[in-house]
Amino acid sequence: MKKVALAFDLGGTELRAALVDSEGSLLSFSAVPTHAAGGPAAVIQQIELLAASALAEMPDLVPVGIGIGAPGPLDPEAGIVIAPPTLAGWYEVPLADILSSRFQLPVRLENDANAAALGEWRYGAGRGARSMVFVTVSTGIGGGVIVDGRTLHGRRGLAAEIGHMTITSEGERCFCGAIGCFEAVASGTALGRRATARTRQSDGSMLRKLSADGEVTGRHVVDAARNGDALALELLSAEARWLGIGFTNLLHLYSPDILVMGGGISHGFYLLHDTIVATVRERAMPAYRDVPIVPAQLGRHAGLIGAASLILEDEAISSSGNAL
Amino acid sequence: MKKVALAFDLGGTELRAALVDSEGSLLSFSAVPTHAAGGPAAVIQQIELLAASALAEMPDLVPVGIGIGAPGPLDPEAGIVIAPPTLAGWYEVPLADILSSRFQLPVRLENDANAAALGEWRYGAGRGARSMVFVTVSTGIGGGVIVDGRTLHGRRGLAAEIGHMTITSEGERCFCGAIGCFEAVASGTALGRRATARTRQSDGSMLRKLSADGEVTGRHVVDAARNGDALALELLSAEARWLGIGFTNLLHLYSPDILVMGGGISHGFYLLHDTIVATVRERAMPAYRDVPIVPAQLGRHAGLIGAASLILEDEAISSSGNAL
Repeated sequence: MKKVALAFDLGGTELRAALVDSEGSLLSFSAVPTHAAGGPAAVIQQIELLAASALAEMPDLVPVGIGIGAPGPLDPEAGIVIAPPTLAGWYEVPLADILSSRFQLPVRLENDANAAALGEWRYGAGRGARSMVFVTVSTGIGGGVIVDGRTLHGRRGLAAEIGHMTITSEGERCFCGAIGCFEAVASGTALGRRATARTRQSDGSMLRKLSADGEVTGRHVVDAARNGDALALELLSAEARWLGIGFTNLLHLYSPDILVMGGGISHGFYLLHDTIVATVRERAMPAYRDVPIVPAQLGRHAGLIGAASLILEDEAISSSGNAL
Repeated sequence: MKKVALAFDLGGTELRAALVDSEGSLLSFSAVPTHAAGGPAAVIQQIELLAASALAEMPDLVPVGIGIGAPGPLDPEAGIVIAPPTLAGWYEVPLADILSSRFQLPVRLENDANAAALGEWRYGAGRGARSMVFVTVSTGIGGGVIVDGRTLHGRRGLAAEIGHMTITSEGERCFCGAIGCFEAVASGTALGRRATARTRQSDGSMLRKLSADGEVTGRHVVDAARNGDALALELLSAEARWLGIGFTNLLHLYSPDILVMGGGISHGFYLLHDTIVATVRERAMPAYRDVPIVPAQLGRHAGLIGAASLILEDEAISSSGNAL
């Protein structure tokens, strides 16, 4: 019989479920808006319903376990969701234990960025690398690091909080309170804010047309740049420079074989690439300059596929103290 | 019989050797100025002579292997010294293979900062931690990272190049060519430069007295501050703030259980500690704020002891592809 895992990607706005096989293919997929206001009990009930319907849909398949990507901070070894800002009321929830006793299956938990990194490493852009840094650039900046063949965890699984790495003394204050966080200058939110500041309502610019004359977002900038808009291209060039400064740090600190960029802003990867690489070549020490920087391949399913791989890959299961 | 390793700490100016037992104690110690001008052949001959004299001194002891700390970049898995700036003429030297065929012993190589980190982790300030960041602050800034119970290596062993992590857009250009490297603003060299700029020849200041009216070094600042000099204390406070910014990044990126500071500037650790901690509390995300920041315990022998542990600790040997 085909070896499959039941995978969940638990986000603050959407809860996704899939049955994933050991080639990383989705055999079923469903998604519902996360009932975040209901607290842990309501969301866990949603997970149970999605699981039941996924299994009913494919009655011949018996999953060998459940892999879950969930917002950090979480403790992957203990299987505990610590206190995610996007899930109100969740505080030290032992999600792996709860689900494993309900389903009588091994359950493994990983933070969403690490799950996406695992997906890209095992089935996507990072296949074959021993060490890989995955960076997701969308409204915020997150990351997951595979180093020497393993997910980098550190104390309580809190490593690779790359969005709050200080890279400058300039820019607006980050929501975390510090100045100069990578996320505060290089996220899609920062890009959108710069674009909004460079335009005015009803100025006829492509950016304001795309945003229906409202706040311009990072995705609007990417879309305008893909259509050749000069201002958007200029804004992306500045964006790429910030990304290059942050990526250079990540090369020095983790020494990956490859750096994979995902997230909404990576839809403009081909427009960002040359300036990112030029910035890295200018700033990195020689031994780090030639590390490939590539776009993610699995899109929004990276987290689900990576969550499934927590269960499907023997290395991961044997290294866990959490599987039943 | 006592289990011992022969350990070397190969520096650009000094070559040290010791027999180290499995409690991390030095049973013998010798040091000579590195004959760096002679290139690899001359230095390897020095290593052989030191080895012979260490063994002759303790004829009852037969080392189980040789551990070497050497300047990076080096490839610990292949046992190759790549191209260290402090050792002219060394280019892709397979030092582990050369020494293992001469001595008929397993040889393991690690970069000097990682070796010191291993020493502090196994026998010093980091004992018992699963993850530890070691930072050495002297003329430059180097580091070694233990994460999830293993040395962090990455591609070609080049991870943890923390001195060249960009943390600001201010300050003088680093020798590496970039602006804002941690090392360029927070090393002993940077501290000394700021002290020199704040004083003048024959101005009667304690800093100029300690420096015999020449360039003030970071160590002079530490010594003057320990003697209560107000200007030196002010300079150390600014230094501690830069260290706190860099350390905050390291907490976010590696999530250690403990951060250990060594190097010459750590002689002023007790004067730096409060401002470092205040800066971390101000800038780090809540989950990282309480990680202990402590001084190194093994002093200048950390590297030798850590190099020996590459051989003496089974975990390290079994995980190596390099031991005979």
